[in-house]
Amino acid sequence: MHRGGAAIVAHGGGPTPVLNASLAGVVEEARRTGGISALYGARNGISGIVSERLVDMLSLPPGLLEEVACAPSSALGSCRQSVKAEDFERMLEVLRKRDIRYFFYNGGNGSMYLALQVERAARAASHELYVIGIPKTIDNDLAETDHTPGYGSCARFFAHAVRDIGADMRALPGRITVVETLGRNAGWIVAATALARKRDDDPPHLIYTPERPISEDQLIADVEREYARFGWLLVAVCEGQLNDKGEPFGADLFAPDGFARRLAGNLGHTLAQLIAARAGLRTRSEKPGLLGRSSTAYVTAADREEARMCGRAAVAAALAGESGKMVTLLREPGSAYRATTGLAELSKVAYAERLLPREWINAAGNGIEPAFLDWARPLVGDVPAYPTL
Amino acid sequence: MHRGGAAIVAHGGGPTPVLNASLAGVVEEARRTGGISALYGARNGISGIVSERLVDMLSLPPGLLEEVACAPSSALGSCRQSVKAEDFERMLEVLRKRDIRYFFYNGGNGSMYLALQVERAARAASHELYVIGIPKTIDNDLAETDHTPGYGSCARFFAHAVRDIGADMRALPGRITVVETLGRNAGWIVAATALARKRDDDPPHLIYTPERPISEDQLIADVEREYARFGWLLVAVCEGQLNDKGEPFGADLFAPDGFARRLAGNLGHTLAQLIAARAGLRTRSEKPGLLGRSSTAYVTAADREEARMCGRAAVAAALAGESGKMVTLLREPGSAYRATTGLAELSKVAYAERLLPREWINAAGNGIEPAFLDWARPLVGDVPAYPTL
Repeated sequence: MHRGGAAIVAHGGGPTPVLNASLAGVVEEARRTGGISALYGARNGISGIVSERLVDMLSLPPGLLEEVACAPSSALGSCRQSVKAEDFERMLEVLRKRDIRYFFYNGGNGSMYLALQVERAARAASHELYVIGIPKTIDNDLAETDHTPGYGSCARFFAHAVRDIGADMRALPGRITVVETLGRNAGWIVAATALARKRDDDPPHLIYTPERPISEDQLIADVEREYARFGWLLVAVCEGQLNDKGEPFGADLFAPDGFARRLAGNLGHTLAQLIAARAGLRTRSEKPGLLGRSSTAYVTAADREEARMCGRAAVAAALAGESGKMVTLLREPGSAYRATTGLAELSKVAYAERLLPREWINAAGNGIEPAFLDWARPLVGDVPAYPTL
Repeated sequence: MHRGGAAIVAHGGGPTPVLNASLAGVVEEARRTGGISALYGARNGISGIVSERLVDMLSLPPGLLEEVACAPSSALGSCRQSVKAEDFERMLEVLRKRDIRYFFYNGGNGSMYLALQVERAARAASHELYVIGIPKTIDNDLAETDHTPGYGSCARFFAHAVRDIGADMRALPGRITVVETLGRNAGWIVAATALARKRDDDPPHLIYTPERPISEDQLIADVEREYARFGWLLVAVCEGQLNDKGEPFGADLFAPDGFARRLAGNLGHTLAQLIAARAGLRTRSEKPGLLGRSSTAYVTAADREEARMCGRAAVAAALAGESGKMVTLLREPGSAYRATTGLAELSKVAYAERLLPREWINAAGNGIEPAFLDWARPLVGDVPAYPTL
């Protein structure tokens, strides 16, 4: 295998509150092993490679690296663009020119698909390159890994948000609030808000997941029944919830480039209007939105450390001659939670979207089964209840 | 003056993250002075007095009281209902029956108006009653006080939210986000998001306040100009922002009881749609909403302590024979921030709404003057910037 070449690290897709911790892990392991001659951080993902907007990561002051490791978002910047054939050619030029032999791409399944393409392009061009993906997504929808860095902290944010908004609502009954969480096609985040429930009357009273489309009639029937029980109601739903025609609620098509249209919608608002109009109940919606993945208020130490561990493991794997793999998190057997890293084929991750298993959604499609809570609790941590008089 | 009678404490209006600290202050001072024979906490404000749903506050375990003091929302519950003539009669019956001589009402200007009515009703009925208002509102729109308990923590939440959402956006340029803060008629909260700005390109790039209505044309011109400068844009606006016809943007009239219609709207979403449609730019909106007043993640120690201090001062004032007054916060002269309490006539607070002074809004009506930041900084605290590479 190749020795002594340079490495490049880049971010793809939406940031998380611990993405920079993975970046710090890459730098840390590259420094420790000494097997990498230079480590370039690409600004704004692939576009920073193509345009050679690169940061010399090994020369960063250690103090700055630790500050960056604790900051949310992506210190390098990220990208969402699709990559054209000429971009791959240009990228290979840059890799050759700088003798880059290690390629670390930190992202979700779209980014893993891109990493796989880079590996194939390098092989086709006979440029020896070790490509390792680093998992990252708050959505937790990556295959082959127990969970993804970023998920635990984001889920923790929303579980606490539901608890806090619920505490406010309990003081002034007679209201319905729809809380919209992040999460597009997979219900992992919204499901975790169930950890805020300690007593029967705790919110969220209803939880919907995109794996189980709901009809308007079911929604209204659920809301009227549960509101009658409690005198107030908190409904948790994620931004990608589908109706029974398979369409996202609230998919306002106002993104002019036709990209990420669903994100431009406002599902919570649409549902609030629907409930107010059909059930005649006073309803509002809240949407912390991007704050849920950019706030560090609820980042867990374990999530940050696992993100860093994935960065370190990527460098170690590449230097050991692995390529075309993504670092995974494995949950160790036993009652105490502990995670280690493994490797999975990029080809198994690139095309896959891991959804919330059907058996963790209740039969009515409006709540979460205890088995999910047992799985999620070590990642999300405790959501303590507030005292009552 | 009366000695040895009982007291009652109740909450009115929307909760804050430090409202329970004021409640703890009332209990603490009542215990300390020993001049009050019983202290009743009324559940859900006036309605709990009328229906005698009362909590014996002096018998609460001290440990529970301290837990409650740190919890958001209102442990007693609050109310928003209007009070009818028969409610006052019924309330007087309860006050007489239980020999209640001290009346503490914790709320905003609507609640201070109610406290004034209670005082007048008691006087008309020759029931000796000492009525003291305790200030509370995240909106900071109470007259006669430097600021209100709850404001600093809520403003701090939103200043950090703008910083964090901005950090996310900076990593993936090409987007516009409208962040909707709490705040109805007064711009105090949205103005404080300016504390997140350290550099010219830091968010929020545009701040609107309800004191300065904006036309759609101005909004679009502002957005297009600033987006061209930075390549991304964060607009901060509060839920009560008015257009140049004096109407709230996004006032969806779907609150079936006709009450608080503006709260049921979604101004940020309306503006995002407007910007996307007219400027042709990719736009979304975020609305932490009630989370901004129920999260304790950004509660300041000073805000919590001042809230508690106001509760203690209310009891001390009533026992000293004061009535028809609201406790105020006074900012001590000098460079180091320090607050003490004072008293103001309820009649001067009850009808007044304190708006953000015009001179603290910039000439263009889309930003905040440094003088406001000097005023707000001690209340909101520092909003540290994230490191950059």
